Amino acid sequence: MSHPRAVVLLSGGLDSATTLAIARSEGFACYALSVDYGQRHRIELAAARRIAAALGAREHRIVSVDLAQLGGSALTDRAIAVPTEGTSLGIPATYVPARNTVLLSLALAWAEVLHADDVFIGVTAVDYSGYPDCRPEYVRAFEAMANLATRATVEGHRLTLHAPLIDLAKAEIIRRGKALGVDYALTVSCYQADAKGRACGACDSCRLRRAGFAAAGVPDPTPYRAE
Amino acid sequence: MSHPRAVVLLSGGLDSATTLAIARSEGFACYALSVDYGQRHRIELAAARRIAAALGAREHRIVSVDLAQLGGSALTDRAIAVPTEGTSLGIPATYVPARNTVLLSLALAWAEVLHADDVFIGVTAVDYSGYPDCRPEYVRAFEAMANLATRATVEGHRLTLHAPLIDLAKAEIIRRGKALGVDYALTVSCYQADAKGRACGACDSCRLRRAGFAAAGVPDPTPYRAE
Repeated sequence: MSHPRAVVLLSGGLDSATTLAIARSEGFACYALSVDYGQRHRIELAAARRIAAALGAREHRIVSVDLAQLGGSALTDRAIAVPTEGTSLGIPATYVPARNTVLLSLALAWAEVLHADDVFIGVTAVDYSGYPDCRPEYVRAFEAMANLATRATVEGHRLTLHAPLIDLAKAEIIRRGKALGVDYALTVSCYQADAKGRACGACDSCRLRRAGFAAAGVPDPTPYRAE
Repeated sequence: MSHPRAVVLLSGGLDSATTLAIARSEGFACYALSVDYGQRHRIELAAARRIAAALGAREHRIVSVDLAQLGGSALTDRAIAVPTEGTSLGIPATYVPARNTVLLSLALAWAEVLHADDVFIGVTAVDYSGYPDCRPEYVRAFEAMANLATRATVEGHRLTLHAPLIDLAKAEIIRRGKALGVDYALTVSCYQADAKGRACGACDSCRLRRAGFAAAGVPDPTPYRAE
């Protein structure tokens, strides 16, 4: 029996690697999509390539979109500092305007070309940075829009947007991924990893990741710069 | 009094030029956004630049996104021919998978950076090519999604997605634009215009445009190759 196709957004971080492993475990033939949007932590794109291969993606593509030209985020504008003082109230400077909407629109485009009815994204609304485009109501609204957007849906197909991590705490995500054989040493979460992929240990993403490994009781394979 | 800001998607064609003129006439300070998505008719990007200047846009940006890499359309894949036999039943080969969703997601990103609560798109569901992402229900669904996607909306702003042409026939669009001073000689509609911007006269976009000028009783300023 042939496996149905799914497009899986793959950043190169912990969450999206786990999402790819989950999609595979559910029987999908996975087409991994990474987006080079001018992020300062482009090392994650190299990580994505290794993860796609390790987790058996059928194909991996990196699409470029020049979000840096629009500005507005610490992740794409080097004039804005990445916060390292811990998660604060409100939406942080690392928020990239409409990022998940841009990523999902590209995933939707590729899904249509591939005749895939399923798209996976590794957003989580538990141990997260408070980004609006990670919330369940956002995911549902994108799915509703997508089902009016494409030729495939006009022709009777129904697109399902899967967010399998959305209710999971970071420790649960890590335990789930370990059970599925994810090698987290391949993943890069840090917003300002160096050229060797070593993490700062201080940005929100590092803090959430480190606390997750600790809570899961799993040794943290992350190479940190300062240690 | 200061003018509220709006992002206006500007392809360089007739419809989006008219939309920009309408947004200006409604008192918005307009930020025109064009997207280089690998379309074969890139000459329209040069047209967009001239139109933005002629119609008083505050700023004009061209963002690149490599949709050609995902394939699936006659407009981005030179291996697929542009149909020239007239509008047929169904969705034509010039449909670009999820194009308006990609364009609108970029407009949403820029709107958030600019603190603009308004986005304009020149889709029409009357004299059109049958693209699913031009329908009113699609526009409403994108707006609903956008209002869950951004920091601005979490902070109490409401994004309005304007599609002022959606109920207008091509002839009405042309009459409206003429009344607002749009110089249609600056616009390029042809899917396969040559390097000088001369139109083929045979593709769906040329046919709709030519019929529109005829129905409006307005002289057609389009330079055609074969005449």
